[in-house]
Amino acid sequence: MIYSLAGFTEPANCTSLVAPFTSEPNRNMAAGFNEEKRAGKGPQSSYIINPHLDSMKEDILYHFNLGTATHDLPAMFGDVKFVCIGGSPWRMRSFIQYIAGELRLSDPNADFPDICAGTDRYSMYKAGPVLSISHGMGIPSIGIMLHELIKLLHHARCTDVTIIRIGTSGGIGLNPGTVVITKQSVDATFLPQFEQIILGKKVLRSTDLDEKLSEELLQCSKKLNEFDTVIGNTMCTLDFYEGQARLDGAFCSYTEEEKQNYLEEAYTAGVRNIEMESSVFAAMCKLSGLRGAVVCVTLLDRRKGDQMTSSHDTLNDYQMRPQKLVRHYIKKQLNVV
Amino acid sequence: MIYSLAGFTEPANCTSLVAPFTSEPNRNMAAGFNEEKRAGKGPQSSYIINPHLDSMKEDILYHFNLGTATHDLPAMFGDVKFVCIGGSPWRMRSFIQYIAGELRLSDPNADFPDICAGTDRYSMYKAGPVLSISHGMGIPSIGIMLHELIKLLHHARCTDVTIIRIGTSGGIGLNPGTVVITKQSVDATFLPQFEQIILGKKVLRSTDLDEKLSEELLQCSKKLNEFDTVIGNTMCTLDFYEGQARLDGAFCSYTEEEKQNYLEEAYTAGVRNIEMESSVFAAMCKLSGLRGAVVCVTLLDRRKGDQMTSSHDTLNDYQMRPQKLVRHYIKKQLNVV
Repeated sequence: MIYSLAGFTEPANCTSLVAPFTSEPNRNMAAGFNEEKRAGKGPQSSYIINPHLDSMKEDILYHFNLGTATHDLPAMFGDVKFVCIGGSPWRMRSFIQYIAGELRLSDPNADFPDICAGTDRYSMYKAGPVLSISHGMGIPSIGIMLHELIKLLHHARCTDVTIIRIGTSGGIGLNPGTVVITKQSVDATFLPQFEQIILGKKVLRSTDLDEKLSEELLQCSKKLNEFDTVIGNTMCTLDFYEGQARLDGAFCSYTEEEKQNYLEEAYTAGVRNIEMESSVFAAMCKLSGLRGAVVCVTLLDRRKGDQMTSSHDTLNDYQMRPQKLVRHYIKKQLNVV
Repeated sequence: MIYSLAGFTEPANCTSLVAPFTSEPNRNMAAGFNEEKRAGKGPQSSYIINPHLDSMKEDILYHFNLGTATHDLPAMFGDVKFVCIGGSPWRMRSFIQYIAGELRLSDPNADFPDICAGTDRYSMYKAGPVLSISHGMGIPSIGIMLHELIKLLHHARCTDVTIIRIGTSGGIGLNPGTVVITKQSVDATFLPQFEQIILGKKVLRSTDLDEKLSEELLQCSKKLNEFDTVIGNTMCTLDFYEGQARLDGAFCSYTEEEKQNYLEEAYTAGVRNIEMESSVFAAMCKLSGLRGAVVCVTLLDRRKGDQMTSSHDTLNDYQMRPQKLVRHYIKKQLNVV
């Protein structure tokens, strides 16, 4: 079953999806915001909103090097219940080894083949009901991956899937190593929205995440009791240097004081960390109906600096924290003690 | 020497960099557009515009896993004159082997170590004066790489560097396999500008590329006479599916007719291909003073479809074309017959 938008095939109604260009940040959200909600109810059995897909003889998931004519996607992926994603291919490979050992699905030293071995765009690994995929850096890179993942879940007829981004970030006012579970992903003006351009027009999408899932993850962290975890807003930017008020890029046109003022404004707006993928992740989860969460560790406190000066071992320890938390959550869901 | 902006240290003047939010697409370019031009003249000896860098004891190029305190960057990179970049690590590795053989710098089967082997964010290879780097997919990913590359060239005291993106793209109204040399990179509304967000405010930057370099590359292609090459505008988007009017994403809210109308508008505006990195590349080249060009092959004609249905061998052949063209150009510059 494909969920469809009300009035989907009527071009006249399509424009209702398109929020007008706004000259001022819009704190009330765009009128078009809720028009994209799926019409379906009941158990989630498909995550796509695209009436054209059914008429395609074949669907090539180009950046995964997979396709409906070349792969038996239901056989390969039909049992997937948890998708964990992160920027780095190496980290997502080590995560699948870690989780497979923890779920006692294999020898912890077993090797897992890269399901996307035919391409170097993304890496994908699977252990039982857990899929682990790298998404590269930035909104466009994770966006391509999510489009193809959502289609993959549809073709494989997956149901009741939870997706969690386990990533790294810069913190604001937190000790490095603190894990942030994202409440809302906000843009560089601290608004909880993602701007998508469709046919040259802006569409604003909500970036609310599943509150219940975030709360469950926070409870897991409390039980683990190995590191600090908070729920806070996450600012998602298109640039790592100027876009995050760093002073150490190739270009910088502002002072240290202006940087600090901007970070202070972000903190006041509830922002506790900054990264580069959460907004499109949240928007696509909400639109598709996927239950999603963003769990990122902070590698530094941006109020105190811009560069990653911690030792390799310390950074590695920090990067394990979201993995540990999500491991705990998945084990609990699967009743693995 | 660090080139500086006029009035750079005066916070009051910094706001001149910031174009106001515009409610309509601005075809005359923003007033702030030219304020960012570097003040320096004469031979290009530095590409950075950042007064803070000089006060840093050490500069860690985090995503390259390189740094001024840990690596002798002038010894490693001081002789670089050509930087070739592309999305795929595999392609950039095969390019360095190809160019090293062509320049007779090594046995064509020689192996080249990944200079960024300590990280999986980017791959970097060097052969004589040629550096080959992968940049991943999308504006944020290439943007991080370019910030760190421009700082690397500065720290290594490189001069007179030419940078060329050799990539893949979707074409409009061209036979698949045609190579497009970018005249101007335009956004999804066909304007030659790149929008950067700095301290939460929009800054519009020009995306003009070096006309002389583009013309020289076109002449190289004519001499090669192996495939069609044109100079045209390149549309740069933040999304591969909805952002490029594809009908085969996880979400699609428009009709085939609306897609075709949008592509027709793009064609009328001089757009001949669509990809996801050229705008920030052009903007950062212009701002830094790097001589840059974008040379992308078209893998399909978007008027006729959305999916990459050509055979693996055909796509591989297409992907070699920008490499062949740039090889010819570099050999000519170095007087290697």
